[in-house]
Amino acid sequence: MGSSVLIQKALKIREDSIDSVLPGVTLPDPLPQNVQGIPDTILNPAELQITGYDTLEIVQRLASRELSCESVTKLAQKTVNCITELLPEHAIKRAKYLDSLPHPTGPLHGLPISIKEQFGFEKDQCGAIIFARTSQPQSVMHLETNNNIYGRTVNPFNRNLTAGGSSGGEGALVGFHGSPHGVGGDIGGSIRVPAANCGIYGFKPTPFRVGNPGGMGLIVGQEGIIRCIGPLAPSLSSIELFMKAYLGTEPWIKESYLAPLPWRPIQLPKKLKIGVMWSDGIVNPHPPITRALSLLVNSLESNPAFEIVDWKPIDHDKCWDITCALYWEDGGRRLQKVLRSGNEAPLELTQWLLEQPTIRPRTVEEALELKEARNSYRAMYNQHWLNTGKEDNHPVDAILSPVGPGCAPPHNQSKYWSYTSQWKLLEYPSVSFQVTKLDPSLDVRDDSYRPISKANEFNYELYPGPEAYEDAPASLQLIMRRYEDEKCIDILKKIEAATHDFKK
Amino acid sequence: MGSSVLIQKALKIREDSIDSVLPGVTLPDPLPQNVQGIPDTILNPAELQITGYDTLEIVQRLASRELSCESVTKLAQKTVNCITELLPEHAIKRAKYLDSLPHPTGPLHGLPISIKEQFGFEKDQCGAIIFARTSQPQSVMHLETNNNIYGRTVNPFNRNLTAGGSSGGEGALVGFHGSPHGVGGDIGGSIRVPAANCGIYGFKPTPFRVGNPGGMGLIVGQEGIIRCIGPLAPSLSSIELFMKAYLGTEPWIKESYLAPLPWRPIQLPKKLKIGVMWSDGIVNPHPPITRALSLLVNSLESNPAFEIVDWKPIDHDKCWDITCALYWEDGGRRLQKVLRSGNEAPLELTQWLLEQPTIRPRTVEEALELKEARNSYRAMYNQHWLNTGKEDNHPVDAILSPVGPGCAPPHNQSKYWSYTSQWKLLEYPSVSFQVTKLDPSLDVRDDSYRPISKANEFNYELYPGPEAYEDAPASLQLIMRRYEDEKCIDILKKIEAATHDFKK
Repeated sequence: MGSSVLIQKALKIREDSIDSVLPGVTLPDPLPQNVQGIPDTILNPAELQITGYDTLEIVQRLASRELSCESVTKLAQKTVNCITELLPEHAIKRAKYLDSLPHPTGPLHGLPISIKEQFGFEKDQCGAIIFARTSQPQSVMHLETNNNIYGRTVNPFNRNLTAGGSSGGEGALVGFHGSPHGVGGDIGGSIRVPAANCGIYGFKPTPFRVGNPGGMGLIVGQEGIIRCIGPLAPSLSSIELFMKAYLGTEPWIKESYLAPLPWRPIQLPKKLKIGVMWSDGIVNPHPPITRALSLLVNSLESNPAFEIVDWKPIDHDKCWDITCALYWEDGGRRLQKVLRSGNEAPLELTQWLLEQPTIRPRTVEEALELKEARNSYRAMYNQHWLNTGKEDNHPVDAILSPVGPGCAPPHNQSKYWSYTSQWKLLEYPSVSFQVTKLDPSLDVRDDSYRPISKANEFNYELYPGPEAYEDAPASLQLIMRRYEDEKCIDILKKIEAATHDFKK
Repeated sequence: MGSSVLIQKALKIREDSIDSVLPGVTLPDPLPQNVQGIPDTILNPAELQITGYDTLEIVQRLASRELSCESVTKLAQKTVNCITELLPEHAIKRAKYLDSLPHPTGPLHGLPISIKEQFGFEKDQCGAIIFARTSQPQSVMHLETNNNIYGRTVNPFNRNLTAGGSSGGEGALVGFHGSPHGVGGDIGGSIRVPAANCGIYGFKPTPFRVGNPGGMGLIVGQEGIIRCIGPLAPSLSSIELFMKAYLGTEPWIKESYLAPLPWRPIQLPKKLKIGVMWSDGIVNPHPPITRALSLLVNSLESNPAFEIVDWKPIDHDKCWDITCALYWEDGGRRLQKVLRSGNEAPLELTQWLLEQPTIRPRTVEEALELKEARNSYRAMYNQHWLNTGKEDNHPVDAILSPVGPGCAPPHNQSKYWSYTSQWKLLEYPSVSFQVTKLDPSLDVRDDSYRPISKANEFNYELYPGPEAYEDAPASLQLIMRRYEDEKCIDILKKIEAATHDFKK
């Protein structure tokens, strides 16, 4: 089959699947820049109420039969965008079956969830119902979402900005309240960036805590940087709910490559020591991000339960050099082969990544040396972290950092990964979360600013002023040591409880 | 420096270090075939008593000050063989320091331990004292121990047989009662084989449970098959003592690549289901090994606490093909470069491995495909294991298997790795242990036997009859699912308690 025939086939599957649940709906033409208000004009009040529920609330109401699985699933299908395929028959059949049972089937009984297109989904897990597959970019290696089949996924708060990627379909769908819970994958920021861009929570766990049965992609066999599967959700409690529920099924029995660790209760230190990374020393963030950091830091500094120190980044540029070389040990040859076989040109961001200076076809020996360089960097950074406890025997508990140089960038401009990819090479769990949103009166451009690097120059030019980022969420990221996934969520809970006064 | 100068330098370091603790001792010339009796002729009765203690007993007597650290360390140095360097100054200085302290410094306070040459040893761990570095083969990739610097390490029970390898110095030293506890590395059987050959216990844990700080070797960066560090010891209790003590130090804080798992208490099922692998379907084992299996099986079959079933091996030949290709993704080019730079010819067993049919220089893409093949094999085998519980919902708890085709082979003949390398690719923890020893009247050769493969033919010819294996220990191996390290030791304890009547 020719590639255009394949594209038509894929588009028809998508259109048919959406038409079957959204008959007769007319959307405004042209669409407004911010589309968050559209569900209000289409859904009835009862339906709208459900889209406002937190995941935990939905699960509780489903378990108590106050909501039927069928109605929630239908509703979720109605409000979507950014999907590659709705699964109405699968979802409704499954929902009816669950409703027919005398007891809930699992901790996520009846919860409609969406998943990134690249995942296998033979079985629903923990009782959840997979109702939609969502979009991802060409090569699944952009921090945006655009491909030659389904086109571009845009940001529900501002259609001129990207939803982020590569789990951009999830970011947009959950951010639009079109799905109460999403599952994405992160190899350079692909969960945390779309979550940050779309005003929700995105959690990248330590590798091998969440499995990827049936997962596909060009990175199969690539183990230099491990792709992590994790949740995108409108609340922190639903992130935790997912992790607990999933790990409660002991997935490591069936997927023997996983670590045999349930979601562990932990004891936080009485006083939390937070290292704040204002900049990675290469690209200073835009005004709304620095303001978001200041907001949190000012609030926490006056709180005796927190100690705030500066986090000193070390050689993050070197880390990026190793990281992107490990993405494509073959210099991208496997990717280029797939593109050629589909008669497909690389998109701008595909090409941009392949042209990073350290990416080239390597011999096996060179690839082995690269792993060695990665391991040395990991050991160095771990010691760096431990050294923060040299004087008081209390190393930093967490790093608070930007998720990227700014809010969601305009399309095709997400060319700085290092704020998220850094913690991929290091395998540190991290969660992104919205702190505030762009404020036109506060987030003015500093015209006297002098960029500290070429990458900084590019990213500085991306901020002509706040008008380019209207309504954009301003998000941050909390980073923990390897395997401290539980601590990551618990500390963010504490931070949110301590700073709820100015949130969003 | 020329290579012969380097060799002379290494030999002088070794000789000086031994002379300083064994002055004036004359050994019989020629040495007898079985050298286990020699310490009796050299040590005084008090010293001999100490070499008979179990590790736990030594540690308890050291903690209670009944033994001084210094005397035990000196003694251990006196009785050794198969070492590359004794560390008398380091050990005695450390021992004196420990004796000067008011309290024990750790769970292994004062215990003299030996370590394989390839490991770093900047610091002693858990209070133990590193007193000797032990021999390993050229390339550290033989199941024997022979190199152009120190020559061959032989079996203390029968000098015509190999001590095994690559941790052969540890096997011989601990088997000879020259060290109460050893630490080795296993990438294809290198802990379990020397332990089996020398009549002691060898435990290969799941990867990333025991760290390897400062470890060196040609496999740096090689992650297709992960080398595991683990203990070799004269008793099962000392294997457990080491694992508990080591993991009790939370090594994953300093070595962040390790899994954050302490030694976990576990609950064994009331009835243990043991899968017995009589053969891997490629090389049937020699008579003493089959007899050792029968001894255990007959005893356990009459015990209501055990259920014995057959273990069906699947595609172990395919597993070997993938495994050895992953050892040398570069076809051995890095190894050959090192050999050339030292003007060194590959030894017979080095050459044998490099000539395995699937080993060749690969492109990065081919190396990535190899990882994919490995991952598929792992998934298939895991499902195979779970399927053993299809009917009774109780999958096999452990596999009982040979460690190799026979007892310790004559020199240069260890050319069948699959009984141990199989569980390396699968990352299953396994422990080897002696069951009995060669019995000339029972272990007769079956002259009518028809080999089932070429490899079987070679290994059958290695058994002309029991006379070639006089005094050789006959050992087996117990294998568990990934991360079930604790269960592995606990089940072996139960098996030993149930079968102690005929042991050794």
